[in-house]
Amino acid sequence: MIIVALDPPPHADPREWCSKIVSSVAGHPSLAGVKIGLPAIVSQGLGWVKGVLEAVEGLRVADLKLADIGAIMRIVIERLASAGFDAVIMHAFVGDEGALDEAVDWCRAHGVKAIAVVSMSHPGSAKFIDKHTKEMVEMCRRLGVWGFVAPATRPSMIKLVRDLAPDSRILSPGVGAQGATPGQALCAGADYEIVGRAITRAEDPRKALEEMAKLQREALQKCRVDT
Amino acid sequence: MIIVALDPPPHADPREWCSKIVSSVAGHPSLAGVKIGLPAIVSQGLGWVKGVLEAVEGLRVADLKLADIGAIMRIVIERLASAGFDAVIMHAFVGDEGALDEAVDWCRAHGVKAIAVVSMSHPGSAKFIDKHTKEMVEMCRRLGVWGFVAPATRPSMIKLVRDLAPDSRILSPGVGAQGATPGQALCAGADYEIVGRAITRAEDPRKALEEMAKLQREALQKCRVDT
Repeated sequence: MIIVALDPPPHADPREWCSKIVSSVAGHPSLAGVKIGLPAIVSQGLGWVKGVLEAVEGLRVADLKLADIGAIMRIVIERLASAGFDAVIMHAFVGDEGALDEAVDWCRAHGVKAIAVVSMSHPGSAKFIDKHTKEMVEMCRRLGVWGFVAPATRPSMIKLVRDLAPDSRILSPGVGAQGATPGQALCAGADYEIVGRAITRAEDPRKALEEMAKLQREALQKCRVDT
Repeated sequence: MIIVALDPPPHADPREWCSKIVSSVAGHPSLAGVKIGLPAIVSQGLGWVKGVLEAVEGLRVADLKLADIGAIMRIVIERLASAGFDAVIMHAFVGDEGALDEAVDWCRAHGVKAIAVVSMSHPGSAKFIDKHTKEMVEMCRRLGVWGFVAPATRPSMIKLVRDLAPDSRILSPGVGAQGATPGQALCAGADYEIVGRAITRAEDPRKALEEMAKLQREALQKCRVDT
C-alpha cells in the first residue's frame, strides 16, 4: 500500500497543487492515504488543508515531526485534527514524561493516530536516533502509539521495529527519489511505503501510482518466495 | 537579558495579540528579542509574522524545533527567513549528515542564526536527549551553530553547555510558568532567559518585563558574590 507525500514545489499554490494530485489518485485500490509536511503548511497555515483532505479516503497524515514539550504538541495536534488530519507524526526521541505521554494520550482520547519516528532515512540518523530505536519502540508501545516511521532506505531498521512491535503499523519514507526501490520496505515488514515526487511530479500521477503498486506487488511476491 | 516567547492563546488573532505585546515591550533595555513557536504559525501560516517582527529590535527567533532531513529543513528555514526571522531553532538529535549539516550551512550562507536544542525542560529529556548533550554540542560547534537551547529548569545542563561552548550563545526556556526563577539560568551560564506567560499574560507586559529584569539583576549580583 502507498501513502502519497504531498509536498508542493516552492511557488505552487498548495491547495491547488495538492487537490490536483488527490483528484488524480483518489479511489485507486493501492492508495492508503496522503501525507502533508511542514513546508506545505508553514507558509499559509491550515486554512486550505480541509478542502484537500475531504477528498481523501484513507489516512490523512500530518508530518510536522513534532518534537516539543507535551503542552505545545497537544495544541498543535488539536489544530491539525481540526483541519482534518487523522494521524500525526512525532519524534520518539523527546522521551515520554512531559512530552510524548501527553501527546499520545491526547491522540488516543480524540481518535487521532499517533505515529512515532524511531529511525530516519538520512545518514545522520545513525548518530543518535538509531542508537535508541529499540528503547524508543518499547516506550512508544507502552504509551499506545498506533504506528512507527522507519526508513525504506535501511530495511534492517524496519525489521527491528517489526520484531519489537508485531501489531503496530510501520510507515516507510525514502522510496523513489531517496533511493529505496518499491516493495523493499514492505518485504522488510512495513505496511505502507510513502512515495512523493515519483508520483506527484509524474505527468499522470495515477499511472505512476499504478506502476509503483505493480512494482510493490512483484517485489512482495519475490521476497515471499525467497523466505 | 530576556527573550519574550510570543505564544498567543488558542482563540486570539495571532497578529493582533503579538503586536500588542511587542508594542508594550519594544525598546526596553532588557529585551533581547522575541520567539514565536509552532502553535502561532501552524494555524495561519507566516503571512502575519512580518508585520509583527518589523517592530522588534533584536533577535527574532522561529521556534519550530525543526527535526527533519536537511532538504525539508532548508525549505522551511528559507520561508522563515523570508518572513523576517533571523534565528531558527532546530534539534541536534537528528544528527549532522544529511540533516543538521545542510540546515546549518544554509543558515550560515544566508545570515540566519542556527540555534540547536541540546537539552529540554521536561523530565523526558533525560531519557534520550540529555544522554548525548556533550556529543551534540561538539557536533554543533563543528558545524558552526550560533547558539544552543538548554533549559533553565536544569542549571547543570546549562553549565555543561557553557563549559563545552564558551563562545556560543545559550538561550534558556522554562523561566516563570515552568518553574525556574529569574536569573537562575544566567547564573549557570546562559545569555538569555526566555519568558512567556509571566510577561505576555501580565496586565502590563512592559512592567512585568521590568520586574523580571530586576529579579535577574539581583540574582546575578548574588551568584557573582557567591562564586
